Amino acid sequence: MSTQLLNDRDIEFLLYEFLDTERLLSRPRYEDHSREIFDASLRTAKTVAEKYFANHYEKGDQQEPTLVNGQVEMIPETKAAWQEFTKAGFLAAHQDYDEGGMQMPEVLVRVIMAYINAANIGTAAYPFISIGVTNLLRAFGSEQQKSLYLPLIMDGRANGTMALTEPGQGSALGDITTLAEPHADGNYRLFGQKMFISCADHNIADNVIHMVLAKIKDAPVGVKGISLFIVPKFLINDDGRPGARNDVVVAGLNHKMGYRNATNTALNFGEEDGAVGYLVGEAHKGLGYMFQMMNEARIGVALGAAAIAYQGYNCSLEYARQRPQGRLPSCRDPASAQILLIEHADVRRLLLAQKAYSEGALAMCLYASAVFEDQNTAPEEADRERARLLLDLIIPVVKSWPSKYGCVSNDMAIQILGGSGYIREYPVEQMYRDQRLNPIHEGVEAIHGIDLLGRKVSMKDQAGFNIFVEEVTKDLAHATKAGLTDNLVAGLKIALDTLCLTTDALLEQVKADTDKGLANATMYLDMFGRIVAAWIWLKQARLAETRISAGNCGDQDVAFYQGKLQAARYYIEWELPAVQQLAALLDSGNRVTFDMKDDWF
Amino acid sequence: MSTQLLNDRDIEFLLYEFLDTERLLSRPRYEDHSREIFDASLRTAKTVAEKYFANHYEKGDQQEPTLVNGQVEMIPETKAAWQEFTKAGFLAAHQDYDEGGMQMPEVLVRVIMAYINAANIGTAAYPFISIGVTNLLRAFGSEQQKSLYLPLIMDGRANGTMALTEPGQGSALGDITTLAEPHADGNYRLFGQKMFISCADHNIADNVIHMVLAKIKDAPVGVKGISLFIVPKFLINDDGRPGARNDVVVAGLNHKMGYRNATNTALNFGEEDGAVGYLVGEAHKGLGYMFQMMNEARIGVALGAAAIAYQGYNCSLEYARQRPQGRLPSCRDPASAQILLIEHADVRRLLLAQKAYSEGALAMCLYASAVFEDQNTAPEEADRERARLLLDLIIPVVKSWPSKYGCVSNDMAIQILGGSGYIREYPVEQMYRDQRLNPIHEGVEAIHGIDLLGRKVSMKDQAGFNIFVEEVTKDLAHATKAGLTDNLVAGLKIALDTLCLTTDALLEQVKADTDKGLANATMYLDMFGRIVAAWIWLKQARLAETRISAGNCGDQDVAFYQGKLQAARYYIEWELPAVQQLAALLDSGNRVTFDMKDDWF
Repeated sequence: MSTQLLNDRDIEFLLYEFLDTERLLSRPRYEDHSREIFDASLRTAKTVAEKYFANHYEKGDQQEPTLVNGQVEMIPETKAAWQEFTKAGFLAAHQDYDEGGMQMPEVLVRVIMAYINAANIGTAAYPFISIGVTNLLRAFGSEQQKSLYLPLIMDGRANGTMALTEPGQGSALGDITTLAEPHADGNYRLFGQKMFISCADHNIADNVIHMVLAKIKDAPVGVKGISLFIVPKFLINDDGRPGARNDVVVAGLNHKMGYRNATNTALNFGEEDGAVGYLVGEAHKGLGYMFQMMNEARIGVALGAAAIAYQGYNCSLEYARQRPQGRLPSCRDPASAQILLIEHADVRRLLLAQKAYSEGALAMCLYASAVFEDQNTAPEEADRERARLLLDLIIPVVKSWPSKYGCVSNDMAIQILGGSGYIREYPVEQMYRDQRLNPIHEGVEAIHGIDLLGRKVSMKDQAGFNIFVEEVTKDLAHATKAGLTDNLVAGLKIALDTLCLTTDALLEQVKADTDKGLANATMYLDMFGRIVAAWIWLKQARLAETRISAGNCGDQDVAFYQGKLQAARYYIEWELPAVQQLAALLDSGNRVTFDMKDDWF
Repeated sequence: MSTQLLNDRDIEFLLYEFLDTERLLSRPRYEDHSREIFDASLRTAKTVAEKYFANHYEKGDQQEPTLVNGQVEMIPETKAAWQEFTKAGFLAAHQDYDEGGMQMPEVLVRVIMAYINAANIGTAAYPFISIGVTNLLRAFGSEQQKSLYLPLIMDGRANGTMALTEPGQGSALGDITTLAEPHADGNYRLFGQKMFISCADHNIADNVIHMVLAKIKDAPVGVKGISLFIVPKFLINDDGRPGARNDVVVAGLNHKMGYRNATNTALNFGEEDGAVGYLVGEAHKGLGYMFQMMNEARIGVALGAAAIAYQGYNCSLEYARQRPQGRLPSCRDPASAQILLIEHADVRRLLLAQKAYSEGALAMCLYASAVFEDQNTAPEEADRERARLLLDLIIPVVKSWPSKYGCVSNDMAIQILGGSGYIREYPVEQMYRDQRLNPIHEGVEAIHGIDLLGRKVSMKDQAGFNIFVEEVTKDLAHATKAGLTDNLVAGLKIALDTLCLTTDALLEQVKADTDKGLANATMYLDMFGRIVAAWIWLKQARLAETRISAGNCGDQDVAFYQGKLQAARYYIEWELPAVQQLAALLDSGNRVTFDMKDDWF
């Protein structure tokens, strides 16, 4: 682990300068809050993260969960972490006071989770998924379901899981086959197998509440026949305590490359009489309910990616500042002292790229969270609608860019440490392994490419896309006014214009032939991602330029803002121009990969 | 493991079409050989690889070497693999008959190793390094040293190691501190510590012969004061059997992310009276000796990278051909059957990219081996010299491109398998971990960038660079004549012209300011690498086009050649154009990473 989890100065910048979170204090929901309260929560989060999560980051990797007589056993630190997290009230931090929550703004909750993720991404999976489950229950559960299950999870007596995937279906949820048979008791009995279910057994709490997608007998085929069920590991007695064991068992553990302290299971439902399941909401509407939680879950995965990248950056930065190694190419005196790694230009390149990826990813996730906030609490409905449209559009990018470039970033951290980076005596190799999950779960990259180009861009007459272009254009004007150098502004301007042309061209291609038109959608996702990332960096650069120009910053602040400016320059000058090459491929409807045939491989 | 190690049809193509290896039969050294003999050796290699190396690929990862009472213990399959490899005579396959070898051409030996690498990269490290040690001894050892140590290694009674790196020095060999004190017996006593030494202890053979870089007391500072010593684990009695234990011990094991069955150690020399060391060649010339082996070692590492990428490609191709998953975007019928993964366009993109990387990397390594062959056995001295200059130039690329894009390739293999790719129940995650070593050992990327731009390109009035340009230009003409479509030929032509201009610009920048001029050398290495890779693909595409046009191929061959053409199109249309963006960065001498300051991070 790095000696610092994220970078407190950066968090302060992102929350109070970049996103101006204090503006939320004027909204009724937050009128009892203050910056002091926000900061106190963050201090608590940091303490919990440092004391109860970071303490077993390596240990949870080395001693991963095991299955002993059908029960998962884990290192004891996991339970302590879970308990401290729930005790701090973070499971419900975003909920209203009258639901036992702290009524915190979304973005604050995300920063809390960012600290936890940075400390231990494997253990963080337990609270992360449980928060999603409580949100799902709150939104769609009956009053009786809410009163029975929510307190259990919020008190830490049970955790939640999301049981969607099955062995034979992967990304295509329409093909799930888990069956729900109506039972005389008015509930259902479930039969089937789920795969890759995280946190589905453990010894951190007494019970597990599975949220399970299944098909009721004779339901419509495909996604329109999916229902959502609550399936507790132990049925709940009327007093809220665990009762009879339900017919859901861990069939086996999956042994992951990373994220190891998050148990990952194959689950069997109904090996005997059927697992008792309670329908949530209406029959056949389960996938719709899940999808309404999707944006939150996707920002959550991306936030994990940002946090792991940030840790790798911090570790390799500390190493580069301490480790003497070689001399400058110009040095001809072998008797001269070795210089530090950070004095080598290529090491600074690897560090600056990591800064651009990791701080950029965190800023992107928090920006998305602020938009999420606006969709719920902006005073005007027009603003809420605008936020909704914008968020829906950018969510595939917000999920994918941090996940993809998080992997690149953690790869660079290893490279800086060299041989030491490759051995388990240093933590960066674990981060590299942990990070690799993120481009897979919550939708593989290809799915998000198709979602973006095949659905989101054209949705409601491109309303979301148009808002995005307006927002970027507005920021370009602000940036010019703030005195940002022309190559930054022009760089993004050109890329945005290119995006608009390419989008038009692609939508025509999709109209002409859906499969061919969407064939290169992953490349479009990457192109779009680079532009969103560059925009996020331009916003930060503008603020930095303004602060420096004001002339009243201390030396440390000036250095901090210079770093932001330099990272923006790096991203816009080094990484953004690839947009042109991607546009050329996409505009021409390049057929090379589409035309490739099975028997040519 | 994939059900096939490499692809026998591709090997046949590379050896006998791409490289026309049979032309070597007219050279005196190979006059007793024939294609049948070559093929029989390859069959043996494949059998040894399949039976004795592939059998413990996963096991060697899961049960890595342990240190028990100062002695390394390993799974027993390792010893069997080592013994079968030596029994087959492969340790000396490239040596002359009168030295106990098979007098095989270099490229054949590389293909033998490619099969072994593809089967088990960790265990392959033992023969790989031992071959290097025998070459070093043959080239620079005294007659007495050769007669004492070579038979030991060639019979498999001892393996060899290369002990260069130390804890405090990393890539900068000039700073090693291991001390060699002259002793009254005419030999030396060594004192110091070496780090990251592979295969330095085990239970596969009775003895270990360390080739150690150290500095004789009062030697010149820096690289000019380094000498090379033989330090056996057990001193050798006159009868060639192990005698007294030498004063070199394993201080500890490094626990790697991958390559785990290759023991990796910290070695202590001289904890007691000093480790007995025998000087090889002259004092202070050790690094020069090592450097003369460097090209071979670097091709060897790249070959390992190519083989791991090839395995990942094979595994993910097999999976994509078997696994049903979802439907085409155009499909509106959820009741229709699932299609295979390979029918999804983005999966074909991931497969085609892997094909371009893995087959391209193998072709690049074998091409370099053929050039290496020519430098030794081409009939005319002018051709030998030409080969020497060309190889010296391209070696940084040949080392780095397969290593870098091997990682990208193995990443894609995981992505195709999705969740299954992330768990240890499937082999692709191990390949991803194994591969990550290759951009680190035998020189990190940055070192090769500086070697290429700072030394190789300008060497001897750019003689090597000019030869490279001539060779590519010649192949462009051939390709046009063969009827290759213009975008392939033009794509590479433009990239080559760009490389020439950028190289001139950079050499001026280096002349003006060495450190600034070399600051972006890693980007130049990537640019150069893309052009070499595109050239290697153009060569293959030309052959494929010629064969197809001849009209006398069977269906399977046509499909094979179409695959080669499509991979060439992919590489030249999708990956080569990035050269323009890199050129823009480099030509302008972009200062962003160079100017970044420590306190701005």
